[in-house]
Amino acid sequence: MKIKKYNKNLEYSYTFGIYPTIELLKAKPEVVVKIISHSKLSSKDGLKLVSTYIKNYSITLECNDKLIQRLIPKENCYIVGIFKKYYPILGKINNHVVLVNPNDSGNLGTIIRCMLAFDFNDLAIIRPAVDIFNPKTIRSSMGALFSINFQLFNSIVEYKEIFNNHNLYSFMTKGQSIFKKVNFKYPYSLIFGNESSGLSNEYKKLGNSVQILQSTRVDSLNLSISAGIVLHYLYIQGK
Amino acid sequence: MKIKKYNKNLEYSYTFGIYPTIELLKAKPEVVVKIISHSKLSSKDGLKLVSTYIKNYSITLECNDKLIQRLIPKENCYIVGIFKKYYPILGKINNHVVLVNPNDSGNLGTIIRCMLAFDFNDLAIIRPAVDIFNPKTIRSSMGALFSINFQLFNSIVEYKEIFNNHNLYSFMTKGQSIFKKVNFKYPYSLIFGNESSGLSNEYKKLGNSVQILQSTRVDSLNLSISAGIVLHYLYIQGK
Repeated sequence: MKIKKYNKNLEYSYTFGIYPTIELLKAKPEVVVKIISHSKLSSKDGLKLVSTYIKNYSITLECNDKLIQRLIPKENCYIVGIFKKYYPILGKINNHVVLVNPNDSGNLGTIIRCMLAFDFNDLAIIRPAVDIFNPKTIRSSMGALFSINFQLFNSIVEYKEIFNNHNLYSFMTKGQSIFKKVNFKYPYSLIFGNESSGLSNEYKKLGNSVQILQSTRVDSLNLSISAGIVLHYLYIQGK
Repeated sequence: MKIKKYNKNLEYSYTFGIYPTIELLKAKPEVVVKIISHSKLSSKDGLKLVSTYIKNYSITLECNDKLIQRLIPKENCYIVGIFKKYYPILGKINNHVVLVNPNDSGNLGTIIRCMLAFDFNDLAIIRPAVDIFNPKTIRSSMGALFSINFQLFNSIVEYKEIFNNHNLYSFMTKGQSIFKKVNFKYPYSLIFGNESSGLSNEYKKLGNSVQILQSTRVDSLNLSISAGIVLHYLYIQGK
């Protein structure tokens, strides 16, 4: 197998650095192809921890400075995980986060990490969207990607047909209900729009539209901040 | 005046792009040195709006493609604002956000934008910290920087001496109080630590330490998400 620099058409992707690599090994050992280490990796960088997982799952560890240099030329990275892309499906009775056309890997990764922090496990993504397997997304999720379910859909209509029991809540600057007064009914889908364009008015007809109160001094909230606020709020209900 | 590529020692800085440039003109026309436009800037990109502000405040508008190319070589940017750095001071009776050693301009900008969205006007920054005037910070704040007050301090002790009436609330993963049960007393300072290291245990002795509830599945929350959650929560109290 010839290992190429990442592009979205490859059947595999990479974790760069110790933190996401350990998360990969902990959560998804079955998809790991192999782990590449750099000769400069020291045991205090977590090689011991990596070795434990590798041993338990009979994963190959290869020291290959040149390969790392080729895969991630601009940074000092001492460990790379290579894994086969995998395609989980969402739970029928779980609550979902639905991201419509997210286009920034940093935002997507941050939201995934937030989901894990607030015990949300299911992420739907409506295409077109930034590549969830891009190593940048994985890095900004700090490896949280490997601990959640995600599934891609070609349209919100396709998503809605499959999850026809879900109650839809679309977060919009001009949503009809105020967020903190909404009584979210299980199972629910929390829908967030694209970073620049938000959600089109069509989403008002899909189900409930909800707004997060804010001052008029900015046009709209940052996508990952909105998601963080909503997920935190629902997490602490009853706690 | 020879206009150089940005570095933190310059006495002036830049807004790149129409959105932050308009925010600069709206909120801080008195510090604007001049506005540089590219010959490709079209009126639909907001030149008309810029022109209105420029006229009202007798600001120079210069068309200079080469200068823009030199200041921001990697992007297609059609308008640049040049402004003199300025140093506001914080209100004695206002609530403050205090960022200790923030090191990412994206996070800093996002938090500034969040502050404006939730009507917080005063930001204290404890050095060392990422440069607040870096055009990247300005861009990720989407120009919100120009609408808030900010002040830099060499240490939290220096800050505390000046604002000795403020009640301090330090947000820490192991804070002693649960965020939603805290009764914040005015005027208050909401203190957030560095992206990687958070706040040291010293902060527990400074005043109140507060934790945002989260699952144990991630180590800690992203800095800007934490700030967003807290600012939103305080904003909606009583609303």
